[in-house]
Amino acid sequence: MSTPGCTTPNHIEIRDVEVEDLSRGLFEVYSQLTKAPRLSEERMRDVVTELNSDPNRRLLVAVKGDSVLATGSLIIEQKLLRNAAKCAHIEDIVVHSDARGQNLGRRIVTQLVNIAKAENCYKVILDCSTENVPFYEKCGFVKKEVQMAQYF
Amino acid sequence: MSTPGCTTPNHIEIRDVEVEDLSRGLFEVYSQLTKAPRLSEERMRDVVTELNSDPNRRLLVAVKGDSVLATGSLIIEQKLLRNAAKCAHIEDIVVHSDARGQNLGRRIVTQLVNIAKAENCYKVILDCSTENVPFYEKCGFVKKEVQMAQYF
Repeated sequence: MSTPGCTTPNHIEIRDVEVEDLSRGLFEVYSQLTKAPRLSEERMRDVVTELNSDPNRRLLVAVKGDSVLATGSLIIEQKLLRNAAKCAHIEDIVVHSDARGQNLGRRIVTQLVNIAKAENCYKVILDCSTENVPFYEKCGFVKKEVQMAQYF
Repeated sequence: MSTPGCTTPNHIEIRDVEVEDLSRGLFEVYSQLTKAPRLSEERMRDVVTELNSDPNRRLLVAVKGDSVLATGSLIIEQKLLRNAAKCAHIEDIVVHSDARGQNLGRRIVTQLVNIAKAENCYKVILDCSTENVPFYEKCGFVKKEVQMAQYF
Protein backbone atom coordinates (compact mmCIF):
# COMPACT_ATOMS: atom_id res chain seq x y z
CA MET A 1 0.00 0.00 0.00
CA SER A 2 1.54 3.31 -0.93
CA THR A 3 0.86 6.45 1.04
CA PRO A 4 1.76 9.98 -0.04
CA GLY A 5 4.79 9.84 2.27
CA CYS A 6 5.95 6.57 0.74
CA THR A 7 6.05 7.81 -2.83
CA THR A 8 8.64 10.54 -2.30
CA PRO A 9 11.86 9.71 -4.16
CA ASN A 10 13.89 9.56 -0.94
CA HIS A 11 11.64 7.05 0.79
CA ILE A 12 13.15 3.63 1.40
CA GLU A 13 10.58 0.85 1.56
CA ILE A 14 11.34 -2.58 3.06
CA ARG A 15 9.07 -5.28 1.63
CA ASP A 16 8.98 -8.90 0.45
CA VAL A 17 10.92 -9.66 -2.72
CA GLU A 18 9.03 -9.58 -6.03
CA VAL A 19 9.85 -10.81 -9.54
CA GLU A 20 10.41 -7.26 -10.79
CA ASP A 21 13.36 -6.83 -8.36
CA LEU A 22 15.30 -8.72 -11.07
CA SER A 23 15.47 -5.42 -13.01
CA ARG A 24 15.95 -3.28 -9.91
CA GLY A 25 19.48 -4.44 -9.17
CA LEU A 26 18.83 -7.23 -6.66
CA PHE A 27 21.54 -9.42 -8.19
CA GLU A 28 24.02 -6.53 -8.25
CA VAL A 29 23.44 -6.23 -4.48
CA TYR A 30 23.90 -9.98 -3.96
CA SER A 31 27.08 -9.88 -6.08
CA GLN A 32 28.70 -7.80 -3.32
CA LEU A 33 28.26 -10.80 -0.98
CA THR A 34 28.99 -13.80 -3.21
CA LYS A 35 28.48 -15.21 -6.71
CA ALA A 36 25.04 -14.17 -7.88
CA PRO A 37 24.42 -14.44 -11.61
CA ARG A 38 21.19 -12.83 -12.74
CA LEU A 39 18.38 -15.40 -13.03
CA SER A 40 16.11 -15.69 -16.03
CA GLU A 41 12.71 -14.07 -15.48
CA GLU A 42 11.07 -17.52 -15.53
CA ARG A 43 13.42 -18.93 -12.89
CA MET A 44 13.07 -15.78 -10.78
CA ARG A 45 9.27 -16.12 -10.95
CA ASP A 46 9.40 -19.77 -9.87
CA VAL A 47 11.73 -19.13 -6.93
CA VAL A 48 10.00 -15.93 -5.74
CA THR A 49 6.60 -17.67 -5.93
CA GLU A 50 7.98 -20.58 -3.88
CA LEU A 51 9.57 -18.27 -1.28
CA ASN A 52 6.55 -16.00 -0.89
CA SER A 53 4.12 -18.91 -0.54
CA ASP A 54 6.21 -20.67 2.12
CA PRO A 55 4.97 -19.65 5.60
CA ASN A 56 8.44 -20.45 6.95
CA ARG A 57 10.35 -18.07 4.68
CA ARG A 58 10.69 -14.29 4.23
CA LEU A 59 13.06 -12.60 1.83
CA LEU A 60 13.06 -8.82 2.28
CA VAL A 61 14.44 -6.08 0.06
CA ALA A 62 15.01 -2.41 0.83
CA VAL A 63 14.02 -0.37 -2.22
CA LYS A 64 14.41 3.29 -3.07
CA GLY A 65 12.66 4.32 -6.29
CA ASP A 66 13.64 1.70 -8.85
CA SER A 67 16.69 0.38 -7.00
CA VAL A 68 17.16 -2.46 -4.55
CA LEU A 69 19.67 -1.18 -1.97
CA ALA A 70 19.77 -4.08 0.51
CA THR A 71 18.35 -7.49 1.23
CA GLY A 72 18.07 -10.11 3.97
CA SER A 73 16.29 -13.39 4.50
CA LEU A 74 14.63 -15.38 7.29
CA ILE A 75 13.93 -19.11 7.69
CA ILE A 76 11.62 -20.31 10.44
CA GLU A 77 12.46 -23.79 11.69
CA GLN A 78 9.86 -25.88 13.51
CA LYS A 79 11.51 -28.03 16.19
CA LEU A 80 10.17 -30.82 18.41
CA LEU A 81 12.28 -29.82 21.44
CA ARG A 82 11.42 -26.94 23.81
CA ASN A 83 7.72 -27.81 23.54
CA ALA A 84 7.75 -27.80 19.73
CA ALA A 85 9.31 -24.34 19.59
CA LYS A 86 10.36 -22.43 16.50
CA CYS A 87 13.83 -21.05 15.79
CA ALA A 88 14.50 -18.32 13.21
CA HIS A 89 17.64 -18.20 11.04
CA ILE A 90 18.79 -14.94 9.44
CA GLU A 91 20.67 -15.35 6.14
CA ASP A 92 22.29 -13.26 3.42
CA ILE A 93 22.19 -9.74 4.84
CA VAL A 94 23.81 -7.44 2.28
CA VAL A 95 23.73 -3.69 1.70
CA HIS A 96 24.93 -2.19 -1.61
CA SER A 97 28.24 -0.40 -1.10
CA ASP A 98 26.72 2.86 -2.42
CA ALA A 99 23.97 2.68 0.22
CA ARG A 100 26.06 2.09 3.34
CA GLY A 101 25.90 4.47 6.32
CA GLN A 102 22.11 4.80 6.14
CA ASN A 103 21.39 2.18 8.78
CA LEU A 104 19.80 -0.08 6.15
CA GLY A 105 21.46 -3.29 7.38
CA ARG A 106 20.21 -2.62 10.86
CA ARG A 107 16.70 -1.81 9.60
CA ILE A 108 16.50 -5.09 7.67
CA VAL A 109 17.86 -7.13 10.59
CA THR A 110 15.43 -5.44 13.00
CA GLN A 111 12.51 -6.17 10.70
CA LEU A 112 13.53 -9.85 10.40
CA VAL A 113 13.95 -10.08 14.20
CA ASN A 114 10.48 -8.59 14.64
CA ILE A 115 9.01 -11.16 12.24
CA ALA A 116 10.70 -13.92 14.26
CA LYS A 117 9.17 -12.53 17.48
CA ALA A 118 5.72 -12.26 15.87
CA GLU A 119 6.04 -15.91 14.80
CA ASN A 120 6.73 -16.86 18.43
CA CYS A 121 10.25 -18.06 17.76
CA TYR A 122 12.23 -18.57 20.97
CA LYS A 123 15.45 -17.33 19.39
CA VAL A 124 16.96 -16.03 16.19
CA ILE A 125 20.42 -17.09 15.06
CA LEU A 126 22.84 -16.14 12.29
CA ASP A 127 26.42 -16.72 11.22
CA CYS A 128 28.76 -13.86 10.41
CA SER A 129 32.44 -13.07 9.89
CA THR A 130 34.49 -11.92 12.87
CA GLU A 131 34.56 -8.39 11.44
CA ASN A 132 30.75 -8.18 11.45
CA VAL A 133 30.39 -9.30 15.09
CA PRO A 134 30.25 -5.67 16.42
CA PHE A 135 27.44 -4.82 13.96
CA TYR A 136 25.31 -7.74 15.12
CA GLU A 137 26.10 -6.98 18.77
CA LYS A 138 24.59 -3.52 18.15
CA CYS A 139 21.55 -5.34 16.74
CA GLY A 140 21.15 -7.24 20.04
CA PHE A 141 22.95 -10.50 19.23
CA VAL A 142 25.57 -12.26 21.36
CA LYS A 143 28.32 -14.64 20.26
CA LYS A 144 27.42 -18.30 20.77
CA GLU A 145 28.94 -21.22 18.94
CA VAL A 146 31.22 -22.05 16.01
CA GLN A 147 29.83 -22.28 12.51
CA MET A 148 31.13 -25.21 10.44
CA ALA A 149 30.59 -25.90 6.75
CA GLN A 150 31.07 -28.59 4.15
CA TYR A 151 31.11 -27.55 0.49
CA PHE A 152 30.09 -29.97 -2.25
CA MET B 1 11.05 -51.95 4.04
CA SER B 2 12.28 -54.50 6.53
CA THR B 3 14.66 -57.23 5.49
CA PRO B 4 15.57 -60.30 7.57
CA GLY B 5 18.80 -58.56 8.56
CA CYS B 6 16.92 -55.47 9.67
CA THR B 7 14.63 -57.21 12.15
CA THR B 8 17.35 -58.57 14.42
CA PRO B 9 17.24 -56.93 17.86
CA ASN B 10 20.70 -55.41 17.42
CA HIS B 11 19.90 -53.66 14.17
CA ILE B 12 19.86 -49.89 14.29
CA GLU B 13 17.59 -48.30 11.72
CA ILE B 14 17.84 -44.63 10.71
CA ARG B 15 14.55 -43.30 9.36
CA ASP B 16 12.23 -40.27 9.35
CA VAL B 17 10.55 -39.43 12.65
CA GLU B 18 7.06 -40.82 13.28
CA VAL B 19 4.35 -40.06 15.84
CA GLU B 20 5.04 -43.30 17.70
CA ASP B 21 8.58 -42.12 18.53
CA LEU B 22 6.84 -40.20 21.33
CA SER B 23 6.69 -43.49 23.28
CA ARG B 24 10.11 -44.67 22.13
CA GLY B 25 12.10 -42.16 24.15
CA LEU B 26 12.63 -39.39 21.58
CA PHE B 27 12.07 -36.68 24.18
CA GLU B 28 14.41 -38.37 26.63
CA VAL B 29 17.09 -38.17 23.92
CA TYR B 30 16.32 -34.49 23.26
CA SER B 31 16.43 -33.78 27.01
CA GLN B 32 20.16 -34.55 26.91
CA LEU B 33 20.59 -31.57 24.58
CA THR B 34 18.15 -28.99 25.96
CA LYS B 35 14.68 -28.54 27.47
CA ALA B 36 12.37 -30.99 25.78
CA PRO B 37 9.09 -31.67 27.56
CA ARG B 38 7.13 -34.57 26.09
CA LEU B 39 4.47 -33.34 23.64
CA SER B 40 0.86 -34.49 23.70
CA GLU B 41 0.11 -37.14 21.08
CA GLU B 42 -2.08 -34.64 19.22
CA ARG B 43 0.64 -31.97 19.12
CA MET B 44 3.24 -34.58 18.13
CA ARG B 45 0.99 -35.73 15.28
CA ASP B 46 0.52 -32.15 14.03
CA VAL B 47 4.23 -31.32 14.10
CA VAL B 48 5.42 -34.64 12.63
CA THR B 49 2.83 -34.39 9.84
CA GLU B 50 4.03 -30.84 9.08
CA LEU B 51 7.71 -31.85 9.12
CA ASN B 52 7.27 -34.98 7.00
CA SER B 53 5.16 -33.18 4.38
CA ASP B 54 7.64 -30.30 3.99
CA PRO B 55 10.01 -31.04 1.09
CA ASN B 56 12.58 -28.75 2.74
CA ARG B 57 12.75 -30.63 6.05
CA ARG B 58 14.00 -34.01 7.31
CA LEU B 59 14.05 -35.12 10.91
CA LEU B 60 15.81 -38.45 11.34
CA VAL B 61 15.87 -40.85 14.28
CA ALA B 62 18.15 -43.82 14.93
CA VAL B 63 16.05 -46.60 16.43
CA LYS B 64 16.98 -49.95 17.95
CA GLY B 65 14.00 -52.14 18.80
CA ASP B 66 11.58 -49.86 20.64
CA SER B 67 14.09 -47.18 21.58
CA VAL B 68 15.14 -43.98 19.88
CA LEU B 69 18.91 -43.69 20.43
CA ALA B 70 19.77 -40.56 18.44
CA THR B 71 18.30 -37.86 16.27
CA GLY B 72 19.26 -35.09 13.86
CA SER B 73 17.49 -32.67 11.56
CA LEU B 74 17.99 -30.95 8.20
CA ILE B 75 16.54 -27.77 6.72
CA ILE B 76 16.96 -27.02 3.04
CA GLU B 77 17.07 -23.33 2.23
CA GLN B 78 16.31 -22.06 -1.25
CA LYS B 79 18.40 -18.99 -2.06
CA LEU B 80 18.34 -16.54 -4.98
CA LEU B 81 22.12 -16.07 -5.05
CA ARG B 82 24.56 -18.57 -6.64
CA ASN B 83 22.08 -19.22 -9.45
CA ALA B 84 19.19 -19.94 -7.06
CA ALA B 85 21.22 -22.51 -5.16
CA LYS B 86 20.12 -24.45 -2.09
CA CYS B 87 21.93 -24.52 1.26
CA ALA B 88 21.34 -27.23 3.88
CA HIS B 89 21.38 -26.56 7.63
CA ILE B 90 21.99 -29.39 10.13
CA GLU B 91 20.32 -28.93 13.53
CA ASP B 92 19.88 -30.73 16.84
CA ILE B 93 22.23 -33.71 16.55
CA VAL B 94 22.00 -35.67 19.79
CA VAL B 95 22.92 -39.22 20.79
CA HIS B 96 21.58 -40.74 24.04
CA SER B 97 24.39 -41.02 26.60
CA ASP B 98 23.81 -44.81 26.85
CA ALA B 99 24.30 -45.18 23.08
CA ARG B 100 27.55 -43.28 22.62
CA GLY B 101 30.63 -44.93 21.11
CA GLN B 102 28.61 -46.69 18.41
CA ASN B 103 29.26 -44.08 15.72
CA LEU B 104 25.58 -43.12 15.72
CA GLY B 105 26.20 -39.36 15.62
CA ARG B 106 28.44 -39.79 12.62
CA ARG B 107 25.93 -42.07 10.89
CA ILE B 108 23.12 -39.54 11.31
CA VAL B 109 25.31 -36.62 10.17
CA THR B 110 26.49 -38.63 7.13
CA GLN B 111 22.91 -39.48 6.19
CA LEU B 112 21.86 -35.81 6.47
CA VAL B 113 24.89 -34.73 4.40
CA ASN B 114 23.95 -37.32 1.75
CA ILE B 115 20.38 -35.98 1.64
CA ALA B 116 21.79 -32.46 1.16
CA LYS B 117 23.95 -33.70 -1.73
CA ALA B 118 21.01 -35.53 -3.31
CA GLU B 119 18.99 -32.30 -3.09
CA ASN B 120 21.78 -30.52 -5.00
CA CYS B 121 22.67 -28.21 -2.13
CA TYR B 122 25.96 -26.40 -2.72
CA LYS B 123 26.92 -26.62 0.96
CA VAL B 124 25.77 -27.84 4.33
CA ILE B 125 26.33 -25.77 7.49
CA LEU B 126 25.85 -26.24 11.21
CA ASP B 127 26.70 -24.58 14.51
CA CYS B 128 28.41 -26.45 17.33
CA SER B 129 30.24 -25.89 20.58
CA THR B 130 34.03 -25.60 20.53
CA GLU B 131 34.32 -29.05 22.13
CA ASN B 132 32.37 -30.65 19.26
CA VAL B 133 34.54 -29.12 16.52
CA PRO B 134 36.85 -32.21 16.27
CA PHE B 135 33.80 -34.49 15.81
CA TYR B 136 32.47 -32.41 12.92
CA GLU B 137 35.95 -32.12 11.41
CA LYS B 138 35.99 -35.95 11.28
CA CYS B 139 32.61 -35.70 9.49
CA GLY B 140 34.21 -33.52 6.78
CA PHE B 141 33.33 -30.03 8.06
CA VAL B 142 35.67 -27.06 8.40
CA LYS B 143 35.38 -24.08 10.73
CA LYS B 144 33.93 -21.01 9.05
CA GLU B 145 32.23 -18.11 10.80
CA VAL B 146 30.90 -17.04 14.19
CA GLN B 147 27.39 -18.02 15.27
CA MET B 148 25.42 -15.27 16.99
CA ALA B 149 22.07 -15.53 18.73
CA GLN B 150 19.33 -13.39 20.20
CA TYR B 151 16.96 -15.01 22.70
CA PHE B 152 13.40 -13.69 23.16
